[in-house]
Amino acid sequence: MANGALLFQSIGYPLELWTPHLSRLRPDLDIRTEENPGRADQIHYCIAWKPKPGSLAALPALKVVFSMGAGVDAIVADATYPRHVPLSRVVDPTLSQSMTEYVVMSVLYWHRRMHDLQSLQRLRKWRQIASPRAENVRVGILGFGALGQAAATALQALNYRLSGWSQTPKQAQGVTTFHGREGLEPFLNQADILVCLLPLTPGTRGILDARLFASLPPGACVINAARGGHLVEDDLIRALDSGHLRGATLDVFATEPLPETNPLWVHPKVVVTPHSAAATDPAAFMAHVARTIARVDQGLPPENLVDFARGY
Amino acid sequence: MANGALLFQSIGYPLELWTPHLSRLRPDLDIRTEENPGRADQIHYCIAWKPKPGSLAALPALKVVFSMGAGVDAIVADATYPRHVPLSRVVDPTLSQSMTEYVVMSVLYWHRRMHDLQSLQRLRKWRQIASPRAENVRVGILGFGALGQAAATALQALNYRLSGWSQTPKQAQGVTTFHGREGLEPFLNQADILVCLLPLTPGTRGILDARLFASLPPGACVINAARGGHLVEDDLIRALDSGHLRGATLDVFATEPLPETNPLWVHPKVVVTPHSAAATDPAAFMAHVARTIARVDQGLPPENLVDFARGY
Repeated sequence: MANGALLFQSIGYPLELWTPHLSRLRPDLDIRTEENPGRADQIHYCIAWKPKPGSLAALPALKVVFSMGAGVDAIVADATYPRHVPLSRVVDPTLSQSMTEYVVMSVLYWHRRMHDLQSLQRLRKWRQIASPRAENVRVGILGFGALGQAAATALQALNYRLSGWSQTPKQAQGVTTFHGREGLEPFLNQADILVCLLPLTPGTRGILDARLFASLPPGACVINAARGGHLVEDDLIRALDSGHLRGATLDVFATEPLPETNPLWVHPKVVVTPHSAAATDPAAFMAHVARTIARVDQGLPPENLVDFARGY
Repeated sequence: MANGALLFQSIGYPLELWTPHLSRLRPDLDIRTEENPGRADQIHYCIAWKPKPGSLAALPALKVVFSMGAGVDAIVADATYPRHVPLSRVVDPTLSQSMTEYVVMSVLYWHRRMHDLQSLQRLRKWRQIASPRAENVRVGILGFGALGQAAATALQALNYRLSGWSQTPKQAQGVTTFHGREGLEPFLNQADILVCLLPLTPGTRGILDARLFASLPPGACVINAARGGHLVEDDLIRALDSGHLRGATLDVFATEPLPETNPLWVHPKVVVTPHSAAATDPAAFMAHVARTIARVDQGLPPENLVDFARGY
């Protein structure tokens, strides 16, 4: 057939929520699953999330791999990944909108002392707690890519004072930007609420550690909506217990689901959510897949490609 | 003296947080307190919040009364209020900003299922809960004045579908507006999250009752940041217990502080905050007072006047 087959390799995802969106757009496409992959040399496209190491290298006719998430660390971590095959990352406005909601909600939650007010409610205590004006609250976005910039725009509309840190220099209206290793310390020194939206790479693994927390102003809050691998959990607990940090909202963890015995579940200064900040929207994702396949059919390069040297 | 005295009649407010802002702007002004009011016929201006009934009528030379809050119900409720004296209400961008934060935080909280996620955290249960896209969540602002319109603008930026209800017709870009008694039912029928920001008047007292809740779609959430007098507490509890309503965030109560024995404190579907959604900013309020006194000195009418016929 003219078009090769597509392998949907994302075990554990309910197929029926995903493939119909693609079939509708490309009824001609032969969509296969891991249970029935057929001949490997017929597979031109693969949708992956946490592929078994070596499984992509075993597909000799691959033209593009699609990552189901904005974070591609689980795919890039496979040392056998065939580097000549472009890896396309979903850039989905609904995902970015959903992440923005989560970040705005969490920033307001710590800024407006909701955590303390809810503790007071459990004690049936009526006590007002002053919060500073948003324009005096400095929110630092650690990882100032597509998701970070979208969140910054929404937070600016609420008058927060924004800064962003990224590996490479970035510009954004009204946002103080920092970059690179030498920019990290001054960035952290002025972040009352730190929002981690970094890609997980060897360079960012474990970045949320004791040293980083010590660089934040006293009473700072931390929101991690990126990857569990960014956070050294014991260091966070120590920084909270010492009183240096005021609170943390965590959506991602080294081990997911978070084990019942993990102390973060019951820490009085921690909000735990089950990796639910932002999910890839099946319809939007499959529209991206169909659009990219059409480009490749026309001999054009796919979009939103991962740079393997950077790891994202 | 050329200017009459000003009486700061708001017992219980820490004077030192308020009067210096006015003294700085008007060093010539004779500012008096209830402890030392001096001669009543020298008092031209009065700052009030919950005046003792009759206390304003006892000031024969009053030119303007200033309400310390956006809600003037406690002043208007005094039947002896001298109606020929203009009552000026604070319209303060910091108050409106603060209310917007509270409303956005509470809408996100119910939309993004934070209440359920926090219950799951207490059980150490990892379970994702889907939430609709913001563009499919209909937020209805009951009371579409200055505060309601500011909140609507911020919610629109997050893609929520907005509607507003007010006593008199109002227009706002991208907001479906309803008004008057006949507009209430169709407005309620389409409000997944209802935000009450009404002024408290005889016509709106007890408006949040069983009948109103029944008109909301099943699973609706209610946020009351207006006045406790709007809410029939028992009706709310019944609507929550029946499962018709999913949750409520309440900042205001019939009796404040909320008594320890009030069942709202411990209701599993209710978030209680201690009348802290939005506080008048002393500096901004006193700037408004100084500006208004200067206008009156020049023979101009004061601004932001309360219409006693409407009650707000």
